Order: sequence, then structure tokens, then C-alpha cells
Amino acid sequence: MTGMTDLHASTAAGQRGPSDHTIRDQIIAAADEHFSRYGYGKTTVADLAKAIGFSKAYIYKFFESKQAIGEAICSMCLGSVTAAVEETLADARSATDKFRRLFMTVAVKTKEIAFNDQKIYEIAAYSCAERWSSATKYIAGIERIVTEIVLEGRASGEFERKTPIDEAVRAIMSVFQPFMNPVMLQYNLEAVPEGANEVASLVLRSLAP
Amino acid sequence: MTGMTDLHASTAAGQRGPSDHTIRDQIIAAADEHFSRYGYGKTTVADLAKAIGFSKAYIYKFFESKQAIGEAICSMCLGSVTAAVEETLADARSATDKFRRLFMTVAVKTKEIAFNDQKIYEIAAYSCAERWSSATKYIAGIERIVTEIVLEGRASGEFERKTPIDEAVRAIMSVFQPFMNPVMLQYNLEAVPEGANEVASLVLRSLAP
Repeated sequence: MTGMTDLHASTAAGQRGPSDHTIRDQIIAAADEHFSRYGYGKTTVADLAKAIGFSKAYIYKFFESKQAIGEAICSMCLGSVTAAVEETLADARSATDKFRRLFMTVAVKTKEIAFNDQKIYEIAAYSCAERWSSATKYIAGIERIVTEIVLEGRASGEFERKTPIDEAVRAIMSVFQPFMNPVMLQYNLEAVPEGANEVASLVLRSLAP
Repeated sequence: MTGMTDLHASTAAGQRGPSDHTIRDQIIAAADEHFSRYGYGKTTVADLAKAIGFSKAYIYKFFESKQAIGEAICSMCLGSVTAAVEETLADARSATDKFRRLFMTVAVKTKEIAFNDQKIYEIAAYSCAERWSSATKYIAGIERIVTEIVLEGRASGEFERKTPIDEAVRAIMSVFQPFMNPVMLQYNLEAVPEGANEVASLVLRSLAP
């Protein structure tokens, strides 16, 4: 997988054992490589152990299950989207600008993963459908950023203040779904970027005071 | 399947042969029954022929393939949603009222199909993912209704007129997707009705003058 920004961001569920990050990261990197080529579904922990030259028992010292390894990879993959969002938001000038950048970066980056890392994208889609903690944490992180942007826009007078903030954020997250949820985006890839931009404009009109 | 409102509405692709509606409808009804129980994927035209007591050759007189039968069933299934929309719009008082009724009826009816006719819902989801003509015609029909409502709201002064009409409609259809496209709605069922209502409100705020 390209774009692994922070290996140590992967504090997904099911990890255990010694806090030896080097070995843990080696397992994750090897598993990522292996899943990218052969897919997550068809690979067993035994296959993985054989491919990366560790014993199965040794891998189980660090991860309680195949899913735990999948969640770590998924956290990195989705974490790279969050990192790209944070980078682009750093020099945005207004809440309006921030919102559009957030929306477009999520859609474009997620689509990139779909094209460049198809097998890893499948894990991400599966993780969202199955609500693994790697996926729910990612979504919660994006929701937090949306909330901050809406509050900032309300404070600056860019956005309306009548709609309850929770409702406004929930509705935006719902509208976001076909562009950010990998399981939905796979049926909506052609809508990125033009369609995504039009939906961002619709949401911004809904936020107008 | 419940809610077959108009058997003759099924002018899906791949139908052929004598215009004997009685036989055609018998085949559709039997196939619907059979698919509801055993699923679309696992059933062959030969299974179907055996189950309904016609020869395979006779079925092929009316439908050129299993997909053609699937499309006819799908047209009826999605047609029942359109029929419910038309019924509820008949006594709506304003474009705003119409928009909310449209959105909620589509979401609630489609969810009902997901719960009451799981196997038929699978055909509808498959037809949307594969863009069968039964699905694209349905979506085009809903888009036509959205366009009419937006134009009506612009004429009455309920809605803004600055956004190009094509863009406004495209963005609304995109926002609609997780609630009307069966393949996306299956991951979004818990958002109906409350979440759908909040998204309808977001769209109405975006339409405000």
C-alpha cells in the first residue's frame, strides 16, 4: 500500500503482547503486502505466517486474530485519508473553504485508494460494512472535523445558526456517505470529483445564513 | 411480492414474442414467487420452467433471458415505489411539502421492500449495481419528479433560482442515493425514517431562496 503515513497510528482493537513496534510493524507491512496481492478473504493467518517467515504462534503474540491485523491495515489506510484532510485544512482561509476541501479530499483520496490498492480498499469496505473499530473511529474522526468546521462557520457568520448543531452534522455525515464510505463509494466512483463538488455546493447552500 | 400495482408497466428490455399478456404475466408472477423463495442467482430458466409447468422453449418465446424476467420483476418492484410517490404527491400543498413526501416515501417504501421481500430486494439491488434498464428507467423517473418539484418551487418563490437547474437536480439525486438506491440503502437502513427526514430538511435548506 502506498501512503502509509503513520504506522503507529494503528491502535486498533485486538492487538496485544509486547509493545515491540518494530516486529508489530513488520507483521503489518508484510500482511499489507500479502493482502494487497491475494486479498483478505482468502488469506489465513497460517498463509501469512508462511509468507513472512514468522510462526503462527509468534504472530498471535501481537494480534489476537486475522481481523486484528486487518483492522490495523484498515486504520492506516483510512488514517492516510485523515492525514490528507488535516494537511489541506491547515492553510484553508474560511469555514466555507475548509468544508469544501474536507469533502473533496475525502472523496478524491478514497477513490485513489479504490484504484491504486484495490485489495486494501476491499478490506476498508468490509470494515465499514462490518463496523470494525478501525472504520467507526475513522468516521468519528471525520465527524469531529465536520463539527469543528460548522461551529467555526457559525461563529464567523458564514453559516446559519438555527438548525440544531447535532442535526446539521448528522445530516452532513449522511450526505457524505456515498463519497466517504468505501462500501458505498464503490458504486459511486464516477461521481468523483465533479459530482462530489456539486454535492459540496449543495451542502454549503444548506449552511448559508 | 406484495404491492404489484401494474403488471403491464413491465416493458423492460428483453421481452419478446406474442403480446399475450396473460401468459407473460403468469410467467412473471411465478418467477417472482420462485425468486422470492429461492433467490435470483441460484435459479435457472430450466428451474423456473419446471416449477411453473411451462417448457423452457415456451418461456423463451416471451423473454430472451433470465435477466429479462428479472428486469420485469424489478420494474414492478420499483414501479410500486413510484406509484406510492405519485399517490402521496397528489394531495401535497406546496413544492416544499412535495419534496419531503417524495424523499420520505421513496426511503420508507424501499426499506419496506428490503424487509418484506428480501429476495426481490436483492434483484433490485443487483439491477441498480448492474444498471439494468429497469433500474435506470426508475431512477430517471424519480429524477423527472425531482425536476418538476424544483421548478414548481422556483416558480412559486419557495426555492432559490440562482443554481443552474441541472446542477441542483443532479446534486439532489446524489444526496438521495443512500436512501433510494437499494444497493446503498442496504447499508443505511437504520437511517430510515429519522435520518432520511433530517437529510430532506438539509436539502430543503439548500433550496431556500
